[in-house]
Amino acid sequence: MSTPILAVIGGGQLARMMAPAAQRLGVHLRALVEAPDGATAQVVVDSIVGGAKDAADLRRLTDGADALTFEHEHVDNDQMRGLREQGVSVQPPPEALLYAQDKIQMRTRLTALGVPCPRWRALSADARTAEAELVQFLAESADGSAVVKTARGGYDGKGVRVVNAPAEVADWIGGQTPLLVEERVDFVRELAVLVARRPSGQAVTYPVVESIQRGGVCAEVIAPAPDLDPAVATRAREIALSIAQGLGVTGIVAVEMFETSDRGGAGVLVNELAMRPHNSGHWTIDGAQTSQFEQHIRAVLDLPLGPTGLRAPVTVMANILGSTRASLSDALPEALAAVPGARVELYGKEIRPGRKLGHVNVCGDDPGAVAALARTAAEIIMGS
Amino acid sequence: MSTPILAVIGGGQLARMMAPAAQRLGVHLRALVEAPDGATAQVVVDSIVGGAKDAADLRRLTDGADALTFEHEHVDNDQMRGLREQGVSVQPPPEALLYAQDKIQMRTRLTALGVPCPRWRALSADARTAEAELVQFLAESADGSAVVKTARGGYDGKGVRVVNAPAEVADWIGGQTPLLVEERVDFVRELAVLVARRPSGQAVTYPVVESIQRGGVCAEVIAPAPDLDPAVATRAREIALSIAQGLGVTGIVAVEMFETSDRGGAGVLVNELAMRPHNSGHWTIDGAQTSQFEQHIRAVLDLPLGPTGLRAPVTVMANILGSTRASLSDALPEALAAVPGARVELYGKEIRPGRKLGHVNVCGDDPGAVAALARTAAEIIMGS
Repeated sequence: MSTPILAVIGGGQLARMMAPAAQRLGVHLRALVEAPDGATAQVVVDSIVGGAKDAADLRRLTDGADALTFEHEHVDNDQMRGLREQGVSVQPPPEALLYAQDKIQMRTRLTALGVPCPRWRALSADARTAEAELVQFLAESADGSAVVKTARGGYDGKGVRVVNAPAEVADWIGGQTPLLVEERVDFVRELAVLVARRPSGQAVTYPVVESIQRGGVCAEVIAPAPDLDPAVATRAREIALSIAQGLGVTGIVAVEMFETSDRGGAGVLVNELAMRPHNSGHWTIDGAQTSQFEQHIRAVLDLPLGPTGLRAPVTVMANILGSTRASLSDALPEALAAVPGARVELYGKEIRPGRKLGHVNVCGDDPGAVAALARTAAEIIMGS
Repeated sequence: MSTPILAVIGGGQLARMMAPAAQRLGVHLRALVEAPDGATAQVVVDSIVGGAKDAADLRRLTDGADALTFEHEHVDNDQMRGLREQGVSVQPPPEALLYAQDKIQMRTRLTALGVPCPRWRALSADARTAEAELVQFLAESADGSAVVKTARGGYDGKGVRVVNAPAEVADWIGGQTPLLVEERVDFVRELAVLVARRPSGQAVTYPVVESIQRGGVCAEVIAPAPDLDPAVATRAREIALSIAQGLGVTGIVAVEMFETSDRGGAGVLVNELAMRPHNSGHWTIDGAQTSQFEQHIRAVLDLPLGPTGLRAPVTVMANILGSTRASLSDALPEALAAVPGARVELYGKEIRPGRKLGHVNVCGDDPGAVAALARTAAEIIMGS
């Protein structure tokens, strides 16, 4: 292939963290970014400022590229198909991306594949019908509540509402965006499984992790999920693998799940999917034999995948969510003095309240002790 | 400090490998490089093409920088002192760099510090006198041979000759470059120790590694050095630490040593020094809790240092030295299929016979098995 060129759509921290992995393998990374000084453009020499749906920008991005990949799903699948017809290797392919873009499509397909999901239904486009459907769904739920989601455009808690009555989504019902309603799962905790899959079919799964959310945003990840029933862990990895295969995903797919206590069935229900390196996989940079970023690059270039075993008994990732500091760098002396083994990663982003600005990984033996160290370092950087 | 700016002189693989470590800590790396398409400029957005001894280029490089560091020692110490007078934090300082630039200065200082060195002497500038000194030195050696070195400019086996008679260095004697002669040490093997030291004094050492040279060039590194007498390991780390402190080095210093069998003394003799991340430390990227590149950056910015413990029982690094392939990337499918856990790092350099083009790290349990895997992957990339 001579020097492989990997084109990526996206200028945030995920494309940014692909850069060291690409560098290491001698892969030339070319990024289509929103801003010339963003998280990705700061570290990728070949950054093109442009729009993810601009045909001319996409042509420049993919010119001579061995593959095109993504750090987000907000792309036009017709354009992606057009690029593929022109010979671009689009990974994951638009037929798979669809399921990361549209939650109704995703639930429909997962249900057809026999994947355990929360009880769900799509709401009709007609407002009156939708309202009646929602009332019925709520009536059938154990506690009279349910989760309404916009089929498209949601992330980090946006586009998701817990409701007890249709009035609470009156502004959504009958609008432009299709809606679905899902059972509010009485879960034990949230789990996540990463899968990597190559176009030629090879696929591997990572150990199951526990994901701790605060305010709809991932705050911490513990790898592996402590005290997880081995049978549930095996089943969770099998489900994630069957999703990657059934949906034809390539690269990294992150499968977020609920661990349930009272089902007697699989022990897990699938919550969300992401077809790209994911926050629940940042622990792999230090805690797994192959980081999700290197694995994604290997997968989308159809190179043999790396091992996914643990590099430490426990790795905990704590997100840096906003900061009261003027500059995160100011906190490095204190954070590294407090936790010398903290693997601090800063994304070069402007500070805003609650924004994902970086993360800290800590490896060790005891989940509680390791989590405390990761949290300490992250909190120092987030300020008081 | 707001976003720290680290300026580095050098455009090769060492500055290149500083980039991911800088990115991770949110440090802006600015490199003064020889060529716009070299190993470093491919991955560092803020690369300045210029000369390491050009005053204007050095001003551009260090403008607003929190520290200036190096990937090689070929700089002008007067210029470095000048920059420091203008407020630039030069790390390591010119007073220390001198000992990496001039082997006579290095041997003189190490001897004064009581560091065990091979028997040595400087040869006079006058050709006749130098010849007589060399004859006498050879006569006092056990086997009539010795090693003559140029005090400056040698690396990777260049500027070093094993001689039995002055005629074999007739072209060097009385020339511009001062010479020294050293005992040809009857060593068991070669060892190396990395030290990291901050301007404010904190210093840490890494586990002792075995370095296997072929043709004067490092071919493999085994971490930790197998079956090393713990007393010798401790002594080697103490010696390396005393050198970093005694010479006032900051950042990473690599101390190359001979392990000796028949001394009854320290068990090691110091061979060479390098004041920068070093080939003998590439194993740390995967095998140590803190890579030498992150540690160097932390040290020169006077940030708290990271732990230096092993991440695996054994890590072996095998260099990729030249290749018969048209492109190293062509070998990735085969190399990664043969050794899925190989951590392949390619430097983006043009292929030339014997040139350091990359390296492979493999972690595992058994030194022999791990070395075989690293060698297999490196050899596939080097071609037949």
